[in-house]
Amino acid sequence: MTSCVDSHLNRTDKSADIKFLDKVFDLVKKYYVETSTGKSKVIDFKLPSEIKSEIDFTLYDKSTDESKLLELCEKVLSTSVRCTHPFFFNQLFGGTHPYSLAGEFLTTVANGSMFTYEIAPVYSIMEKEVCLKLASFLGWDDTDSILAPGGSMCNLYGLLCARHKAFPSVKTKGIRGLPNMVILTSEHSHYSIGKFAILMGIGTDNVVKVNCDEDGRMSPKDLRLKILKLKEDSSNPICVVSTMGTTVLGAIDPIGAIADVCMEFGIWHHVDGCLAGPAVMLPELADDVKGIESIDSFSWDAHKLWTVPLQCAAFLVNPKHKGIMLEANSMNARYLFQQDKQNYDPSLDTGDKSIQCGRHIDVLKLWIWWKGKGTDGVREDSQLCVKHARLLGKMVEEREGFEMVFRVQFIQICFFYIPPGLRSLERNEDFYAKLDTVAAYIKSEMVKKGDVMIGYQRSHHPRNINYWRMVVSNPAITKADLVKVLDEIEELGKRMFS
Amino acid sequence: MTSCVDSHLNRTDKSADIKFLDKVFDLVKKYYVETSTGKSKVIDFKLPSEIKSEIDFTLYDKSTDESKLLELCEKVLSTSVRCTHPFFFNQLFGGTHPYSLAGEFLTTVANGSMFTYEIAPVYSIMEKEVCLKLASFLGWDDTDSILAPGGSMCNLYGLLCARHKAFPSVKTKGIRGLPNMVILTSEHSHYSIGKFAILMGIGTDNVVKVNCDEDGRMSPKDLRLKILKLKEDSSNPICVVSTMGTTVLGAIDPIGAIADVCMEFGIWHHVDGCLAGPAVMLPELADDVKGIESIDSFSWDAHKLWTVPLQCAAFLVNPKHKGIMLEANSMNARYLFQQDKQNYDPSLDTGDKSIQCGRHIDVLKLWIWWKGKGTDGVREDSQLCVKHARLLGKMVEEREGFEMVFRVQFIQICFFYIPPGLRSLERNEDFYAKLDTVAAYIKSEMVKKGDVMIGYQRSHHPRNINYWRMVVSNPAITKADLVKVLDEIEELGKRMFS
Repeated sequence: MTSCVDSHLNRTDKSADIKFLDKVFDLVKKYYVETSTGKSKVIDFKLPSEIKSEIDFTLYDKSTDESKLLELCEKVLSTSVRCTHPFFFNQLFGGTHPYSLAGEFLTTVANGSMFTYEIAPVYSIMEKEVCLKLASFLGWDDTDSILAPGGSMCNLYGLLCARHKAFPSVKTKGIRGLPNMVILTSEHSHYSIGKFAILMGIGTDNVVKVNCDEDGRMSPKDLRLKILKLKEDSSNPICVVSTMGTTVLGAIDPIGAIADVCMEFGIWHHVDGCLAGPAVMLPELADDVKGIESIDSFSWDAHKLWTVPLQCAAFLVNPKHKGIMLEANSMNARYLFQQDKQNYDPSLDTGDKSIQCGRHIDVLKLWIWWKGKGTDGVREDSQLCVKHARLLGKMVEEREGFEMVFRVQFIQICFFYIPPGLRSLERNEDFYAKLDTVAAYIKSEMVKKGDVMIGYQRSHHPRNINYWRMVVSNPAITKADLVKVLDEIEELGKRMFS
Repeated sequence: MTSCVDSHLNRTDKSADIKFLDKVFDLVKKYYVETSTGKSKVIDFKLPSEIKSEIDFTLYDKSTDESKLLELCEKVLSTSVRCTHPFFFNQLFGGTHPYSLAGEFLTTVANGSMFTYEIAPVYSIMEKEVCLKLASFLGWDDTDSILAPGGSMCNLYGLLCARHKAFPSVKTKGIRGLPNMVILTSEHSHYSIGKFAILMGIGTDNVVKVNCDEDGRMSPKDLRLKILKLKEDSSNPICVVSTMGTTVLGAIDPIGAIADVCMEFGIWHHVDGCLAGPAVMLPELADDVKGIESIDSFSWDAHKLWTVPLQCAAFLVNPKHKGIMLEANSMNARYLFQQDKQNYDPSLDTGDKSIQCGRHIDVLKLWIWWKGKGTDGVREDSQLCVKHARLLGKMVEEREGFEMVFRVQFIQICFFYIPPGLRSLERNEDFYAKLDTVAAYIKSEMVKKGDVMIGYQRSHHPRNINYWRMVVSNPAITKADLVKVLDEIEELGKRMFS
């Protein structure tokens, strides 16, 4: 063994540690102010080769000194995409908040894990409290619940509960000897459903896609017909996954009508509310989420519409199925979940219902943020996003050269920008072939310029043409920002085809 | 909508935000110093009812003011178990370091997600670099890899690759029409293997437990016999999971001999190196990990033996299977993984091989820590832990009233403390019944006192008796600490049965 033991292992003098951490906090604060005020670029795009020439990624045998380390930290930040910047409209998350950051900073320094009450007493109680609060907006006075590393994982829990409810012997015997299992979901639902059909041994062939209306909402009528057809073929629909806030269009499936169909046939109804979960808190969307109390389970991402850093997602089960998570997933690992602990009731140990072992504490950042804002403030954030998304939709409708592709249903605005050189063309194959290149070209220029980021896609367009999908998920966005973004698109694209 | 918009949404003046964050950083620093110097208690145990009377967990409609919020933060920290405290020997992780904390603080304020190179350029390159470095210690010059939320999830990736390799049609058709699949693993392996057999639709009945020697290491001979027997019964062994560092004993399975058996039968060999991954870097354990280069996949937790906060775990595939993660898990979600991005090669987008969608950036904390320490420093940390674990084993052997239960193989020390009142008794049923109560009683007193935490268990003991499992996973632990802990156990237990 060499003799140059890391000086930070020194147990009595932590002044060097604090000196270093203070410099890191300076970087954190600088980044926070520059990005949240919108003073920095959104992206300083570089090719991998360029980034590699700026940052020496190699991990050497010898240590790097601290001033060099801090320089590297600064370079890493300057090369990051500023996802918290008000002009980042690219993904289904955005914005930042000092309260949630505080929660995560404290979580990091405390570095616990969620497996048992013994190790995570305050966080176990807190997680239960937060999940009960979320459940209350679904009309439930209790819930079986867990925070999971992302909304996809929450959907996985939903599917696991559904499968266990239908065929509890799957736990020991596996799928092989059981009747054919089928999952029904809409054409617009999240791709994680297919991924988990693979993972769970069900297979993508056994994911039946239910038709949608022109807004991308699942048809309860088609659902019912497809279930009847499956039953005729001796298949077993074990789960219907409906979506509150589809990925691209933001569509909210008719939850109540779907719940009725599920109850008619005794099929588990999981709702993927990862994007539009907060809709259950909004009076303006009350009609869209009617019937939510009858569903069986729900996924809710706090890190999307709310300014809580990733990862923060909750899985909630209807209290009528309480205990099912443990039934479906427990392995009774005795080394961790001893039943003879003397100081507390071991049922407080939530770990055995998780599919993880060590589990990051995701709850503190959400709890402290919610405490600080109050439910009224939490609701108001979502209302601001919805309001601005609708406003942007109206602006797009009214502005020359812009055209809506789908109506605004939640926080996504899907539209074309049509450069002047294309506007007088007949809408034939040639026109659409040209239009298809517009978003990708402008996006590429936009990224080079670096002052705004918006996504585009061709999904669900009847002619498979690329269109903009702009997301308003940051409550700090203003009307002026929206105008500026449309101006930017026009500025970058107006000379195409001229 | 109410009119009291959150003042932190103000886009021009961030002084209030910074003022608040500064106070949070003060709390972070205070906690850091108190815990890492060992000046605080390890735990201030409270029952749920007591914690609830101290902290108001309720989420109200109205906001909580910031001074109250900071008070709550302080109370949350004071109620947390100090997992980074040098006297926390309770779990398979411990310690803290300013470099890795720095990485996570920066990750938090930047709040990105790993799905595409576009959104996470610097982190995509960094993750590849770190995984290549880890792979180099397995003797691989390339790897298919991903960071996942915990070691269990890495094991899941291993099982998914194994299943896909054996039966690629599982992706579309599911398990039902396929021959019976079996996973082989040791009696001492982690419970996640069983959890994932459930999850993947294989079922716990199809997890065959291979016998172990008295040190808890899998028997290659029994493995071979069990495989032959399975093949006779027309079952298909799709994966052997061996363990480097079993949960309780820290046993390292004979990797090379198991790899030979797997290669003989063409079975995927996944190694769960979540605990003892760093052993591949240590000359003193080189014999134990011989043959590692022939395995098919590997799980490696950076948040266990290293002072990197949870979650930080890597899954690595032998380069001969490159591409299999994408083959096994991809869904080609076009809205996210567009193939017509103009600025870079879309194969840099790693998201489609993940079973998550949004994925927390876990790499920066590991990379910056490693940069700062150098590989020599990283290795030295692990060497310190192994050295101190062996030293503690020796101290236990030599100290009156203490007795080793299993030999020290990695960083766990499994032992009995036998109070004086029991020492002269004949070792019959009565003796063991009494001995069985010792650890639980002392642990309960220890937690009330709060100055040290150690776990205990009965797993794998031939008579099913509770014994101490102490874990030395913090490189800042000294010889004096170890003496103090044995003193404490003796002090708390010596009057039992007297």
